[in-house]
Amino acid sequence: MSTRQQKYSVILGNLGNTCDRFCSSYKDNPTSLEMLKNAVKIPCVEGIELVGTWDVTPENAVEMKKAFEDNEVKCVSIIPDLFANKVFWKGSYSSKDASIRQEAIDYTRKMCEAALTMDCDLLNIWPGQDGYDYLLTADYEREREWLCQAIQKLATEYPKIRFALEYKPKEPRTHSYIARMADSLLLAQETGCENVGVTIDTGHAYNGGEVVAESIVLAKRAGNKLMHMHFNDNYTIWDDDMIVGSVHTVCYIEMLYWLDRYGYDGWLSMDQYPYREDAAGAIGESIQWLVKFDAILQANRGKIDELLKQGDAVTTSRFLRGVIA
Amino acid sequence: MSTRQQKYSVILGNLGNTCDRFCSSYKDNPTSLEMLKNAVKIPCVEGIELVGTWDVTPENAVEMKKAFEDNEVKCVSIIPDLFANKVFWKGSYSSKDASIRQEAIDYTRKMCEAALTMDCDLLNIWPGQDGYDYLLTADYEREREWLCQAIQKLATEYPKIRFALEYKPKEPRTHSYIARMADSLLLAQETGCENVGVTIDTGHAYNGGEVVAESIVLAKRAGNKLMHMHFNDNYTIWDDDMIVGSVHTVCYIEMLYWLDRYGYDGWLSMDQYPYREDAAGAIGESIQWLVKFDAILQANRGKIDELLKQGDAVTTSRFLRGVIA
Amino acid sequence: MSTRQQKYSVILGNLGNTCDRFCSSYKDNPTSLEMLKNAVKIPCVEGIELVGTWDVTPENAVEMKKAFEDNEVKCVSIIPDLFANKVFWKGSYSSKDASIRQEAIDYTRKMCEAALTMDCDLLNIWPGQDGYDYLLTADYEREREWLCQAIQKLATEYPKIRFALEYKPKEPRTHSYIARMADSLLLAQETGCENVGVTIDTGHAYNGGEVVAESIVLAKRAGNKLMHMHFNDNYTIWDDDMIVGSVHTVCYIEMLYWLDRYGYDGWLSMDQYPYREDAAGAIGESIQWLVKFDAILQANRGKIDELLKQGDAVTTSRFLRGVIA
Amino acid sequence: MSTRQQKYSVILGNLGNTCDRFCSSYKDNPTSLEMLKNAVKIPCVEGIELVGTWDVTPENAVEMKKAFEDNEVKCVSIIPDLFANKVFWKGSYSSKDASIRQEAIDYTRKMCEAALTMDCDLLNIWPGQDGYDYLLTADYEREREWLCQAIQKLATEYPKIRFALEYKPKEPRTHSYIARMADSLLLAQETGCENVGVTIDTGHAYNGGEVVAESIVLAKRAGNKLMHMHFNDNYTIWDDDMIVGSVHTVCYIEMLYWLDRYGYDGWLSMDQYPYREDAAGAIGESIQWLVKFDAILQANRGKIDELLKQGDAVTTSRFLRGVIA
Repeated sequence: MSTRQQKYSVILGNLGNTCDRFCSSYKDNPTSLEMLKNAVKIPCVEGIELVGTWDVTPENAVEMKKAFEDNEVKCVSIIPDLFANKVFWKGSYSSKDASIRQEAIDYTRKMCEAALTMDCDLLNIWPGQDGYDYLLTADYEREREWLCQAIQKLATEYPKIRFALEYKPKEPRTHSYIARMADSLLLAQETGCENVGVTIDTGHAYNGGEVVAESIVLAKRAGNKLMHMHFNDNYTIWDDDMIVGSVHTVCYIEMLYWLDRYGYDGWLSMDQYPYREDAAGAIGESIQWLVKFDAILQANRGKIDELLKQGDAVTTSRFLRGVIA
Repeated sequence: MSTRQQKYSVILGNLGNTCDRFCSSYKDNPTSLEMLKNAVKIPCVEGIELVGTWDVTPENAVEMKKAFEDNEVKCVSIIPDLFANKVFWKGSYSSKDASIRQEAIDYTRKMCEAALTMDCDLLNIWPGQDGYDYLLTADYEREREWLCQAIQKLATEYPKIRFALEYKPKEPRTHSYIARMADSLLLAQETGCENVGVTIDTGHAYNGGEVVAESIVLAKRAGNKLMHMHFNDNYTIWDDDMIVGSVHTVCYIEMLYWLDRYGYDGWLSMDQYPYREDAAGAIGESIQWLVKFDAILQANRGKIDELLKQGDAVTTSRFLRGVIA
Repeated sequence: MSTRQQKYSVILGNLGNTCDRFCSSYKDNPTSLEMLKNAVKIPCVEGIELVGTWDVTPENAVEMKKAFEDNEVKCVSIIPDLFANKVFWKGSYSSKDASIRQEAIDYTRKMCEAALTMDCDLLNIWPGQDGYDYLLTADYEREREWLCQAIQKLATEYPKIRFALEYKPKEPRTHSYIARMADSLLLAQETGCENVGVTIDTGHAYNGGEVVAESIVLAKRAGNKLMHMHFNDNYTIWDDDMIVGSVHTVCYIEMLYWLDRYGYDGWLSMDQYPYREDAAGAIGESIQWLVKFDAILQANRGKIDELLKQGDAVTTSRFLRGVIA
Repeated sequence: MSTRQQKYSVILGNLGNTCDRFCSSYKDNPTSLEMLKNAVKIPCVEGIELVGTWDVTPENAVEMKKAFEDNEVKCVSIIPDLFANKVFWKGSYSSKDASIRQEAIDYTRKMCEAALTMDCDLLNIWPGQDGYDYLLTADYEREREWLCQAIQKLATEYPKIRFALEYKPKEPRTHSYIARMADSLLLAQETGCENVGVTIDTGHAYNGGEVVAESIVLAKRAGNKLMHMHFNDNYTIWDDDMIVGSVHTVCYIEMLYWLDRYGYDGWLSMDQYPYREDAAGAIGESIQWLVKFDAILQANRGKIDELLKQGDAVTTSRFLRGVIA
């Protein structure tokens, strides 16, 4: 348990265009380098996550590395694009089509190479298209097996890269295969690879009915499997990707407590979707909320230890009133 | 827009026994007078709501009135027991059985008499058993009509009493007839009675997917129909009846703003179900949270006016960070 | 109560491209006339709904009318595009910007003219961008008032056109102003215009926690305000826009019963979003499910009358087992 | 893959009194022997589950065994009462109080003895009170560890008994420790005991956002851990404990397919809560729905194999239309 400085980062694409299934574009579409310049101006940002293909390829990785050095930021993770590429529209690693599964693996290999070039040791794997929409249209056993084998193969080939599975219950499919913390941990275990773990996106966890602090404990108990954190907020049932603290308050303090208690030394990364907001402003707000919540935690770590032992909701409420509002 | 003092009250039964469908009793069962003595000790409590039959009957109303005077509290409302009496298990005002409907009306008349005796002008109507469980088992048209006629008859007979319909989407039935703000307003309109309005229970509103501030606006636009407020908190999907501020924060500030803007001069009443908590402590906490949120509002009313006009989420977030945490 | 033939229709754009916020295009983008040719081939389709600007403008309305005549289909409704046009990204009729509100009204007038040209008497109004995302960023009172005034103005100017408000709780905003049946009815009432009513989209109703049959009854009680029906299915919490019958079964029989009982003579229109499915196939399936459910209803209308009076879940279940599966 | 006869059973208490937190009793309270007589009359019922203490104790186990033999039914499982006994109101195996944890273990030992006496090899463990209500009131790590140790101890002591963990996301606590399939599997793994597995309650799975068929696959992949099935239906967000088929249809066919494909040879047990229904009638209906769905499966197993490979929602819909309605 330390009082070390938190490390804040952001996914680069958060500063770009936004759209939904009705409106194809709410904003302009800046280049990755333009976004990078804006991202590093956000107070406290020391790291950046890149989306594969959009921001980085094996071809431009050296150039991007240079840009990162020039801007004095770290490349926190690379997120292979397994969700926006139409070829994966019915699944990537778990596609019913063997050639598509191969393409997903080959593409991810390229992203591993790009990561190595950028001195980045984390691949954030969000296979958003891997899942199903309708009942009685998927062989869950075979498709899960393919998904597992692909991750295993990649993790074995690239032992220096950590593969963090980002779970999400639904969207873009009505049901994702990597849906919640516990099933992600089961999948990580099935691969048998030390370098496969989990990313928590706070909003995805809310969608899945999870209390994030408890999910952090599950990951710890399954072998210290928490590799990365994405922060945002929402109204519980959908991935609204809003500013931290817009809807929820207490749970952020609780999750920071558990990260701290377990000595989590990864990044606190912002993953939002500022449809109609100034992106840098919205991301900066999330970080500032976390800075505040973290200060509350640092000043009250011992008290919180005590509250968890006591288990009295009235005492906890009184404490929270003292530190919030 | 005033800076008047808020009036806080509590439902008496909140201080009594608790149970659920699995465990018949978590606590002791004090008498109404014992609970009254405990209730008035909670800081800021100036009013009490009584449940019909449990706490008050025409027979004991004079005695209860004396007890209220002795304890220097007001009787804020009487809540007819249309939910715990087995006779209403398949509906009260909308029961398929005409004699049950009559019994519900006759019983409510008695509660009106008790209210008049206690100088209480508000009946909080929560017909929890009026609804349905299974599809294709209810004639929604006829049953709604019976419900409407019963309310209309009572409101016409007792013009000095205000009838506040407390809506709730589900529990104990899988679907309630009085489910959300807007349908309650339609029902109030159908009765054609000035003295029929609505109670917002904040937790019921969350269950119904409502933003309470917007529900307050709906009630205002439908003819100033908000008569009463019940406060508690929950995890959105179920009526957990928890301490205010346990889960949500911002929305309480917003709802107090709108109550204030509309000059709401009714009670802020606590309606919780402290299954495993010290009841007086849990209720007292809710009030103290509201006191804090109200202080934030009073100090920032003009700024909030401005935020609503501006409509910029980043600016709103920055404001909230300044007043919360 | 008749045994008349149901009238089935489809929104033309359902046969076009699909996308989501991650992937900009899953399919090809045919022209309106190409889609029209495919739509009329779907068995039972006798009517088509057009989206304003996309499919129809005052300029091409005569040409479209000819195309409809050539293909022997009716123009069932025109849906003004208040959702895909970036100019309305923060609201149309309720925008904080007066000039945008004016633009929304002017644009809708053009759609009214197009409708008149096409001998279509129904405007299906889905103001998807009218709502809010964050708490404390909207003046619900003023914005609702603007929304109400705009509808009122249009309905008064075009008395021969019926304006059917299509409600939806969320998406693309986290909260829509026209969210559920009951608040839509309140809004329709506030306009004071006979020619303002409501469209039920079955999936939107599920998202709002509604039992559609009960929503039909609410609309009837509020003055026969149901003007139009959009059909699809989903997993309850989100507008998945799936094939009818994919998830739910019984509720479709119940809603057809109430439409029939009230002599609804409008269209049963399919509104799906076949992301990864053959569009004509998916829409055709929905219609065929409704044909089956309707046949069950027609053969059992009297029995269902009886079940609703009886209110016995076991008897209802036994009946359903006899007609389903 | 066989065409063997399904084995249907019921939890005895389903035939008894019902209540909720508002109304303490909707029905009469028959004795266990009276309920047994009624249960065996339900067509297809060949097995009975008993709740510990309520129905069975070490003291009356011999007598109950005799009653079972007289009535020619099997004792399918014993469910220790860890939920209705006030002593466990803040947790049993995971209670913060060591003496309560000990009491829970000692009590379960007695139920193991009763099970052995009754020639029953399954303990269905539903630790409903083990969880938490408020954030920052529980040390998730320590409490999960206690829970795990207790199960491990019991499973080690009673190697001839299978311990099936019944998960449920919430109720009576706002959050249960054994919440969903995947976390139950992780817990089972942590015990390291072959004789610890999982019970699926279909309604609990719906509450948790699960597709039951996929949960069955997860259990299989984790080492054939599915030990028992409880059947009922609900409106997705809450454990309404309704008749099978009241809300959902397709998913029951899908789950029977996967049980069949994996050669599940356990019981299909009914676990309902017929608040206001004739209990034997409601339970009997569920069984008859399953009989129907099973017949559909048996007649179409090969076709379903094909549908899962094909993955075409339109084809699947066409198939379902042919077998349903």
